[in-house]
Amino acid sequence: MRPVFKIWLENNGKVFGEGPLEILQKVEKMGSLRSAAAQMGMSYNKAWRLIAALEERLGYHILEKRVGGASGGGSKVTSNAQQLMKRYSDFKEEAAIMLEKLYYKHFEDFEGD
Amino acid sequence: MRPVFKIWLENNGKVFGEGPLEILQKVEKMGSLRSAAAQMGMSYNKAWRLIAALEERLGYHILEKRVGGASGGGSKVTSNAQQLMKRYSDFKEEAAIMLEKLYYKHFEDFEGD
Repeated sequence: MRPVFKIWLENNGKVFGEGPLEILQKVEKMGSLRSAAAQMGMSYNKAWRLIAALEERLGYHILEKRVGGASGGGSKVTSNAQQLMKRYSDFKEEAAIMLEKLYYKHFEDFEGD
Repeated sequence: MRPVFKIWLENNGKVFGEGPLEILQKVEKMGSLRSAAAQMGMSYNKAWRLIAALEERLGYHILEKRVGGASGGGSKVTSNAQQLMKRYSDFKEEAAIMLEKLYYKHFEDFEGD
């Protein structure tokens, strides 16, 4: 056996987890919500609504317009959202290590296994 | 914000988590899988298939026939399964405390919150 977990953040509903992290990582890489959504097989409209819902629950913007540049336009991740992504990732990574250890503490001498 | 998590055990598929724990707790209390299923609004057939699938993945029995007694029959939780329930519960409880602490470590000075 092995432990599996999901962890997310709530604030009057789900505000951050694997899905939002993945979208924002793609926006960071591709510079556009439209391209990020397309790569995830999600409609732009759905992605936009998801971002808007997250922003409402978080109380701050997670995307802002990218001004100028050769392609002119697109989106970038706000500094608040970058912090959130980093902290959530670090939190999750450390949680995985701790849960693995904790699992062995509780199950290493389990006879049923 | 607050962290929320789900944790379960896998072994060639999901083998134990909140759902199985709840059914087995009710079997322990009521002495019968039929009564436990009814209380959870689940058909006896579905409950029985769920138990059989768990047993196959775990490789040991989790229910056994209760012999005799005034009501004659019913089910009881095997000693292996009792151990599994206890360890999973303790694991989950300690995980909740650790994750709460870990969340504060990563988010207490988060400006976006």
